[in-house]
Amino acid sequence: MRFSCSTCGETYPLDGLDFHCRCGGLFRLDRQAGEAVGASVSLGEVPTPVLERTLNHLPVRLKLDFMRPTGSFKDRGAFVLVNALKDLGIDHVVEDSSGNAGAAIAGYCAAAGIRCDIYIPQGTSPGKIKQLAAYQAHVVQVPGSRDDTAQAILEAARTTYYASHVYNPLFFEGTKSMAHELAGQGGIPDCIVIPAGNGTMLLGAYIGFSELGRLPRIIAVQSSRCAPVHARFHGLEAQAPAPTVAEGIAIGRPMRMAEMLAAVRDSGGDCITVTDEAVLAAQRMLGAMGIYVEATAAVAVAGALEYFPGASGAGLDIVVPLTGSGLKK
Amino acid sequence: MRFSCSTCGETYPLDGLDFHCRCGGLFRLDRQAGEAVGASVSLGEVPTPVLERTLNHLPVRLKLDFMRPTGSFKDRGAFVLVNALKDLGIDHVVEDSSGNAGAAIAGYCAAAGIRCDIYIPQGTSPGKIKQLAAYQAHVVQVPGSRDDTAQAILEAARTTYYASHVYNPLFFEGTKSMAHELAGQGGIPDCIVIPAGNGTMLLGAYIGFSELGRLPRIIAVQSSRCAPVHARFHGLEAQAPAPTVAEGIAIGRPMRMAEMLAAVRDSGGDCITVTDEAVLAAQRMLGAMGIYVEATAAVAVAGALEYFPGASGAGLDIVVPLTGSGLKK
Repeated sequence: MRFSCSTCGETYPLDGLDFHCRCGGLFRLDRQAGEAVGASVSLGEVPTPVLERTLNHLPVRLKLDFMRPTGSFKDRGAFVLVNALKDLGIDHVVEDSSGNAGAAIAGYCAAAGIRCDIYIPQGTSPGKIKQLAAYQAHVVQVPGSRDDTAQAILEAARTTYYASHVYNPLFFEGTKSMAHELAGQGGIPDCIVIPAGNGTMLLGAYIGFSELGRLPRIIAVQSSRCAPVHARFHGLEAQAPAPTVAEGIAIGRPMRMAEMLAAVRDSGGDCITVTDEAVLAAQRMLGAMGIYVEATAAVAVAGALEYFPGASGAGLDIVVPLTGSGLKK
Repeated sequence: MRFSCSTCGETYPLDGLDFHCRCGGLFRLDRQAGEAVGASVSLGEVPTPVLERTLNHLPVRLKLDFMRPTGSFKDRGAFVLVNALKDLGIDHVVEDSSGNAGAAIAGYCAAAGIRCDIYIPQGTSPGKIKQLAAYQAHVVQVPGSRDDTAQAILEAARTTYYASHVYNPLFFEGTKSMAHELAGQGGIPDCIVIPAGNGTMLLGAYIGFSELGRLPRIIAVQSSRCAPVHARFHGLEAQAPAPTVAEGIAIGRPMRMAEMLAAVRDSGGDCITVTDEAVLAAQRMLGAMGIYVEATAAVAVAGALEYFPGASGAGLDIVVPLTGSGLKK
């Protein structure tokens, strides 16, 4: 296995410090048939359950992808990424997510015995820091803006392996496992509705379903308060991002935007937005059914209800993955 | 199925308002061969994973029983109890746990469409109330002491079904499923180390393993700051309870003490205590391995390390269940 540039084709080893091509292009994973990542590092990966529910009048299959060791689907990416790093002999990484990706990478690094520095903006909530600290990650709180944190991680990544959930294709190699699981849990759906920020779930699903030879229509859902992918998809002018309850997908400049657009188009899918009010209503609806998710996870439910009003989804097999536990703070 | 008094043998229907015998005795479940509780109410029950780990020098199997829909093993009890209540046509219940049992019963009642009033002491942490509120449980905050809450629930239980995780044998009928799962996950262990408060896991394990025809030695672990079962087991004078980090097992007067003692004795087991310092050290040890649990869950690990020092556990198959997620507040 190796990385190659999706722009110029230049190849790079998996264990180097380069996390994108010198030409500026993003990495993809080149994998030969039969090449696989190890799985010696485990926190107890079990297939997440699927519940059939009718939301308003819309029958859907809810994939409870928050029922993972660290409380979110990001574990899928961290599982493959960290196992690969362990096999490569890497013993120290840096990462810059204060959210579910950071927790997942910190948790799996702890399991692997890999040192892990997580760069987060000052002011990150105590609950998130508590989980990172439990995994004994070295938490680096960067004063200033989110951009200052981004600058700090770029400095750190010059000398230490960058276990990025955005740049590193091995993370997406992990998030694809949801598609494979679904194939054995009632089959590949007609349609899948996915919250879209950096595209970790969306691109993973695209890779996974592509390997299976059949793509469901991918409906990418963004917050109306931060919708750059939606704007580009529909040829609209992007608005400046505003704070949203869907903080897990509040990504103003997604690095893999072009891939996300191509995936949605290739699937015959669509891109929509939902308001904070619709997200909170969807979160309450799930809670009233006994399903406790964080607001970002409710984006997919709000999107499904928005995209398939009334009985318009009848007869379709629609999967709605739920990305993060309500216990997350 | 029916309830019968474990003291005088008097029988009671499952759907009545009596939650213990008029003689004062506690209920047990009388079940004929072939009688089973329905399972139409589901939040996505999947077998929880088992990880083989060496803690200091002690090889154990960790049963990650917090990887359940509401974040704790108490889901097992709520699953069976609420399914039974649904089958019985009960549409409104009361319960008085501010912790994991309350969350589990509220979550499953939401899934079942059963109204649920949860009585909690004023001052319960916002995180716990948030989860109960998400399930749209009616949260009744009772001013005053824990005893005032106990008094309030007794009043409420005169007119509304008491879905108690302590009195109701259907709850223990649920928690027994961990034993059945373990039998199919590497087999019945030689020894199982269980945090003991009200005995929801301990008695469930005892019932489950008894059904399977082979009892592991049950090591019941209490906090040194609240250890009435330990005191009675060893014929010591009980000390007044003091606050402990293991709040989930801080039960000064366990209703089912006699059953717990009998279960431990019948298994050839033992009862020990662990200090708060040992509990917190065990919690840190798990976190450093990527396993994020609440302090009460770490009691079992602290107990295993206390009971099997050095290499004294070598050659034994020791299971340590982990009861609650670290994401719980």
